[in-house]
Amino acid sequence: MSSSHLGIPKGTRDFGPQTMAKRQYIFRNIRAVFERFAFQPLETPSMENLSVLSGKYGDEGDQLLYKILNSGDYLKATSEADYQQGFVELLPKIASKGLRYDLTVPFARYVVMNRHAITFPFKRYQMQPVWRADRPQKGRYREFYQCDADVIGTNSLLCEAEIVAMINAIFERLHINDYSIQINHRKLLNGISEVIGAPGRQTELAVSLDKLNKIGPQKVLGELEAKGFKQNQLDLLSPLFDWSGSYQELQPVLSEYIKDSPEGAAGLADLNLVYDHVSSLGIENPRLIINPCLARGLAYYTGTIFEVTINNAQIGSVCGGGRYDDLTGIFGLPGVSGVGISFGVDRIYDAMEQLNLFIEQESNACQVLLIAMDPASEPHALGLLSKLRSNQVSAELYPDRVKLKKPLNYANKKGIPLVVLIGSDEIKSGKISVKYMDTGDQEELTEAQLFGKLLET
Amino acid sequence: MSSSHLGIPKGTRDFGPQTMAKRQYIFRNIRAVFERFAFQPLETPSMENLSVLSGKYGDEGDQLLYKILNSGDYLKATSEADYQQGFVELLPKIASKGLRYDLTVPFARYVVMNRHAITFPFKRYQMQPVWRADRPQKGRYREFYQCDADVIGTNSLLCEAEIVAMINAIFERLHINDYSIQINHRKLLNGISEVIGAPGRQTELAVSLDKLNKIGPQKVLGELEAKGFKQNQLDLLSPLFDWSGSYQELQPVLSEYIKDSPEGAAGLADLNLVYDHVSSLGIENPRLIINPCLARGLAYYTGTIFEVTINNAQIGSVCGGGRYDDLTGIFGLPGVSGVGISFGVDRIYDAMEQLNLFIEQESNACQVLLIAMDPASEPHALGLLSKLRSNQVSAELYPDRVKLKKPLNYANKKGIPLVVLIGSDEIKSGKISVKYMDTGDQEELTEAQLFGKLLET
Repeated sequence: MSSSHLGIPKGTRDFGPQTMAKRQYIFRNIRAVFERFAFQPLETPSMENLSVLSGKYGDEGDQLLYKILNSGDYLKATSEADYQQGFVELLPKIASKGLRYDLTVPFARYVVMNRHAITFPFKRYQMQPVWRADRPQKGRYREFYQCDADVIGTNSLLCEAEIVAMINAIFERLHINDYSIQINHRKLLNGISEVIGAPGRQTELAVSLDKLNKIGPQKVLGELEAKGFKQNQLDLLSPLFDWSGSYQELQPVLSEYIKDSPEGAAGLADLNLVYDHVSSLGIENPRLIINPCLARGLAYYTGTIFEVTINNAQIGSVCGGGRYDDLTGIFGLPGVSGVGISFGVDRIYDAMEQLNLFIEQESNACQVLLIAMDPASEPHALGLLSKLRSNQVSAELYPDRVKLKKPLNYANKKGIPLVVLIGSDEIKSGKISVKYMDTGDQEELTEAQLFGKLLET
Repeated sequence: MSSSHLGIPKGTRDFGPQTMAKRQYIFRNIRAVFERFAFQPLETPSMENLSVLSGKYGDEGDQLLYKILNSGDYLKATSEADYQQGFVELLPKIASKGLRYDLTVPFARYVVMNRHAITFPFKRYQMQPVWRADRPQKGRYREFYQCDADVIGTNSLLCEAEIVAMINAIFERLHINDYSIQINHRKLLNGISEVIGAPGRQTELAVSLDKLNKIGPQKVLGELEAKGFKQNQLDLLSPLFDWSGSYQELQPVLSEYIKDSPEGAAGLADLNLVYDHVSSLGIENPRLIINPCLARGLAYYTGTIFEVTINNAQIGSVCGGGRYDDLTGIFGLPGVSGVGISFGVDRIYDAMEQLNLFIEQESNACQVLLIAMDPASEPHALGLLSKLRSNQVSAELYPDRVKLKKPLNYANKKGIPLVVLIGSDEIKSGKISVKYMDTGDQEELTEAQLFGKLLET
């Protein structure tokens, strides 16, 4: 195979060292906060049985699942008639497994399979890639990571407040300061459909409202009209489009608006309680915004819903979630309420790049490059190398005997700040030559002085 | 779907919180050592084009690749004649991608694609799952992690010594003390086939020698006889079966044995130099054993080869690697020498379980469970919760209002050492009740006293 034809599948990416350092920085901080909040790690297989995945993400989702061919003679259970029926009918005979599409369905499957061993409420986090055969575009990949945290087995609104606090803590650690946590409640959406005189049509309403940011209010109204919503209903609805704001501003307005719907009022009361809990947590600026038009596509949400956007980043939402009353019902365990949040690391990465927020140095990058000036100096260099590492210093010895220019260029490209030269002169004098790559300065130090320098940084 | 039919694909596993804590402990230590040795992280996509994967792992490997069905109408490029030709012929028309089988081929593909941007020597590490449609059995899974570190772009034997030091450092951190690093050299194997009078037959020889541990010397000799090796050749070979030992013991014996083969002597000279470098690194007990019968299956090795076994663990080798002179040649970039090592985390995990080596506590486990005794105490409890987390303490508030027995049971099951009870009495008195789950003792403390306790542990 010639190197010019080499490639990777569309919508997937290699992550080289520079990108990896930044990605690890994001993962490390998310994980640290999840654990600080006492969520416990879970990992599920990349492959799930198609019987577990199919029908959980709607028709479109089923099409976006990656299916894995059965191994060996995958045609052995098929006949020519199966082939003639077409790809949909043939599929179950040649593929029984698919790649994970999200972390939520595998989590529900895990909870149901292990329900007798799990102590509820179960707080789990999961950070793994998912795969979708979607059309690749900016910010949308075919393999990407999700970082999910869910509490399942309680309907306490303390959990919602914890999620707000967790978003706050993660973004603070990542130095992302300008963002909004939009919050809404499915019951409030139901109430809205009641008070505009279209009770029971909340799903149609939500599907259109979900597009508000993308297509704008006029097109949303047009779409609803096409669905048969009446002009007087739309007149009652449209003021909501402008109502997005801090909790204090919007709560009284919404309270008045929704007062004739007991369900809507119950939803708003839940949001009130979440807000109170968040206040008790002492978060100075929770950046919490009630958005009565926030709908979120996923059908399984039944209570609060969240969506986080980073202001000034052209990337869409970076984080979303909500409460579900019956996630595990699809697998035969009904009535277990939970609430969860999912962080999209790939989008957070893109936003941080756009906003130039990767300011912290990776602590694990190599600090010292040793260069042995001749073969006889190698044993001495190796001894120093071991000493450096025993003292928690990341270090390496340039392996080849070449002109000095090459290892210096290597240190430069790899961002190694210190280069240490060791030759017979250095060994004799008991001093090593230390070159500072940022200034180009060089000085003679004893090993003890070198360690002193390294430990002070 | 009823919960009784739920399952995961054969050969795959869910990793619940207890298992994950142990796995993360292994990953964390391997990563820390890789970075201390100045290897840089790389991640490649789970899916690779089948043109990249096929033909790289032998015929058996090709069969063990997981293939992914093209999305949409995967039959659209096929005809009934293709179907009739059978599964092998149909495959390229319905699947163009497969799941990663190891980390070495994707690494070679990455190096070739990015050869102009990479600064050589390139030291990369990669810790990702791989997939093989193998028959599942004890210690063999269909999805498992590999942790690889490779240096590519240098033929310096300093790199081999570094790998020995790295194995040593990783196992030391994991408290695995009783293990052996077996080392051999492909040139020494070639030399052996020369000195027994079967020059050029080193591959046949190696394939049989590779089975020595599994089937024993008698069957190996039988197999070689069946391949046409003569009795006098086998008589010359068989003493080697007993020659495995420390470098000091075996070096003179092997040196004498191989003296008539220049290639074999060159291989042994390489091993000598590796041993000298390891000594210079100051490793007290490198556990390095020359095993002239160590062959390792993979065809691409051309120099030193390594294999690590944990003594007293019934698990096979946990780590292996070697030098290759032409790994990237398959993708059109010939003549780039490198050396690498791969750690099998799943086997290391199994061995550590067998040997009861998971002695360290996970540092990130939850330390404090707060219980609010009544709704009025929740705001106070939430405030304390935030304070604990700001002080690096992992803590949670039990979300439901239930009898005390339930949260105490929760703390017990989750291994949370401290439970803090907060009710109106506690708030009034300024003291909180702290219960120590290990002893069952309880005492009244001020918040300041609680923080004092937590910081001293």
